[in-house]
Amino acid sequence: MIRHTVMFNLRHAKGSLMEKSFLRDADVLATIPGVRDFEKRCQVSGKCEYAFSFAMNFADQKAYDGFNTHPRHVAFVRDRWNKEVAKFLEADYEAL
Amino acid sequence: MIRHTVMFNLRHAKGSLMEKSFLRDADVLATIPGVRDFEKRCQVSGKCEYAFSFAMNFADQKAYDGFNTHPRHVAFVRDRWNKEVAKFLEADYEAL
Repeated sequence: MIRHTVMFNLRHAKGSLMEKSFLRDADVLATIPGVRDFEKRCQVSGKCEYAFSFAMNFADQKAYDGFNTHPRHVAFVRDRWNKEVAKFLEADYEAL
Repeated sequence: MIRHTVMFNLRHAKGSLMEKSFLRDADVLATIPGVRDFEKRCQVSGKCEYAFSFAMNFADQKAYDGFNTHPRHVAFVRDRWNKEVAKFLEADYEAL
């Protein structure tokens, strides 16, 4: 299993309608085949500069590849992520 | 619930006995009261500079505080983490 995570900051003001819109509309990612356990989280540590994080699980690399190339993912990245995200850090894990 | 995560790199060579020792001995963290779902993960993304990650859940801030001040956690940080970890990034999350 691969756990895909991304921490990010938005260009929008904290608590703004644009922020709410982005976080709500990201639910489309959970509808893509292969995505399991989709989570949206906010940062509560004062030691980390990133305000939000998404996380999801994939059964294997094939499922992850299918997500990356899925039209709904490609559209979300093109139309929302690339325009509204100021900074991000991806991390993908397998259990030790 | 609070999800506490930390990404890190060790000073040890990849695949070394010292690396294995650190990752094995970190299991002591899972024995501390309040720690749930302790996970040890390795990085599989080429986009992230951190090689490893630990993650765990706490029911609330009180449980998290109890972990932070627990003698086994304090000793692990003092005797192992501070000496063997080269770089790290903590992130703590609550669900949106």
